[in-house]
Amino acid sequence: MKPLILNFLDLSTPEGSFARREPDEALIRVDNLGITRGDGIFETAGVIEGVPLALEAHLARFARSASMLDLPEPNLDLWRRVVVDTAHQMADAGVLTGVKFCMTRGIEGEVSAPTGWALGFIADDPTAVRRDGIDVVKLDRGFRHDVAETSPWLLQGAKTLSYAVNKSVLREAERRGATDVIFTSTDGYILEGPSSSLVARIDGVYVTPPPSMGILPGTTQGDIFTCLERRGLATRVDAVKVADLDRADGVWLCSSTRGAAPVRTIDGNAVPLDHAATELINGDLDARRS
Amino acid sequence: MKPLILNFLDLSTPEGSFARREPDEALIRVDNLGITRGDGIFETAGVIEGVPLALEAHLARFARSASMLDLPEPNLDLWRRVVVDTAHQMADAGVLTGVKFCMTRGIEGEVSAPTGWALGFIADDPTAVRRDGIDVVKLDRGFRHDVAETSPWLLQGAKTLSYAVNKSVLREAERRGATDVIFTSTDGYILEGPSSSLVARIDGVYVTPPPSMGILPGTTQGDIFTCLERRGLATRVDAVKVADLDRADGVWLCSSTRGAAPVRTIDGNAVPLDHAATELINGDLDARRS
Ligand SMILES: Cc1ncc(COP(=O)(O)O)c(C=O)c1O
Ligand SMILES: Cc1ncc(COP(=O)(O)O)c(C=O)c1O
Repeated sequence: MKPLILNFLDLSTPEGSFARREPDEALIRVDNLGITRGDGIFETAGVIEGVPLALEAHLARFARSASMLDLPEPNLDLWRRVVVDTAHQMADAGVLTGVKFCMTRGIEGEVSAPTGWALGFIADDPTAVRRDGIDVVKLDRGFRHDVAETSPWLLQGAKTLSYAVNKSVLREAERRGATDVIFTSTDGYILEGPSSSLVARIDGVYVTPPPSMGILPGTTQGDIFTCLERRGLATRVDAVKVADLDRADGVWLCSSTRGAAPVRTIDGNAVPLDHAATELINGDLDARRS
Repeated sequence: MKPLILNFLDLSTPEGSFARREPDEALIRVDNLGITRGDGIFETAGVIEGVPLALEAHLARFARSASMLDLPEPNLDLWRRVVVDTAHQMADAGVLTGVKFCMTRGIEGEVSAPTGWALGFIADDPTAVRRDGIDVVKLDRGFRHDVAETSPWLLQGAKTLSYAVNKSVLREAERRGATDVIFTSTDGYILEGPSSSLVARIDGVYVTPPPSMGILPGTTQGDIFTCLERRGLATRVDAVKVADLDRADGVWLCSSTRGAAPVRTIDGNAVPLDHAATELINGDLDARRS
């Protein structure tokens, strides 16, 4: 991730506004709750030819995360404009780009407005990953599959700035010779990756676990299912047991800038790579212009 | 919390250094991993007459958190100096103060140094809370009591900047008419508060759960036990079942700037308030000068 374009928001009025700043400018105080408590939310949208992808789905999830954290309801008109503007500034970058937009609870102890910004960046080139696949390990997330329903205060399924665990599991994966992770519940369900949704093809059906399991509704997974259905392929949003995954003849970790990354090993065991299906899915994703 | 004194560190050399800045100065970039991922650690020490309390215990826990997050080992000489300096600058504040010190993983995508600072602040006056007690609710943390041992990648027991849940549970407490929280494990153990350690007096013994249960080794709890033992009172670090708490004739939530806050109700049920014990404990805490 290399920062390119920064728009910083002023959220002290109901309409709000934004202005360009230098991407490496220090704009955050050390007592901002975003940094002292990871108390805020974010979204990362892919950008192709200066156009943010799945923008409405990202905005909807942003509003959902805000509500889960009891943050002020974001003015989606304003956020739409700032993300579109940030993406548009990168139309000539000639490489894959993305926009990350964040809102924190603001300054601690002040009756203050939220803090917000949108950062346009150059994304990592996903070509090799999409072609060669990734090695993943399953790691326990420590929660039951129904934790979001029984204990909503644990914020499972919100896209928060408290992502230290989502980074920590990548280091554990590395120690085990892998580069990514599939979270499992304590009661034997497949959940998601630390920054991706899981899609598996089991018995000929593309399946992904439901957001009610304390996982994010994936914007990329959503667009993939729309494309697959348009092509007459079977999809299903349904619980996936750990044992079900052993039967899969294709597994993908799906996210905004990387697209569908095929999984080639899970805990060291080979998973079939269906290059044709991967190319079809990523072709459809790359053909999006909204 | 009102910021008073800010020291910002330069951690780009092995020795490191620090310099005074204005406490409301923006010093953090929007792509600092501390804010984008809550990827960092912190400590908050109480300060009396310009002297930081339990400093060695805070430094030891800081190093322990760094290790749990695979962060560079902090140069404790440097951190000791910056905390002492920050506290010293507030010697004449005439009110209860504290120092919060933080280290983040630095800028995303750069081979960069960690980011660090120490912020001296005016603390909330704990007098009323210590006298009147607090209303708390028990909330499920979603994990088993042994999660830190089975799944260390979940960082339970590290004091990280990913504290959104520790704040979310306070809003849930407020919705239930309380102001603080006691976390429980899914298998029926008492853990800690979102920013405090629990001490209960059960069958005449002051008891606190062990850090092996994925909770912080409390520096305040540590000093309280030392004082109680010096006075010939019985203490024990041991598992506390939820049902055991019903037998307690005194419960306190203990933390650096507030001291020992007596619990007067749990889930709406009265808990005995032992004013004499509370005053004895807080008297000993306030008499500390190191
Ligand atoms: C936990 C988690 N699940 C799933 C996703 C995938 O979402 P999207 O496809 O919208 O990028 C992300 C994205 O970062 C994530 O953080
Ligand atoms: C989760 C948690 N437990 C316990 C404590 C109490 O630690 P200390 O007494 O060192 O302030 C804290 C302090 O903030 C905390 O965050």
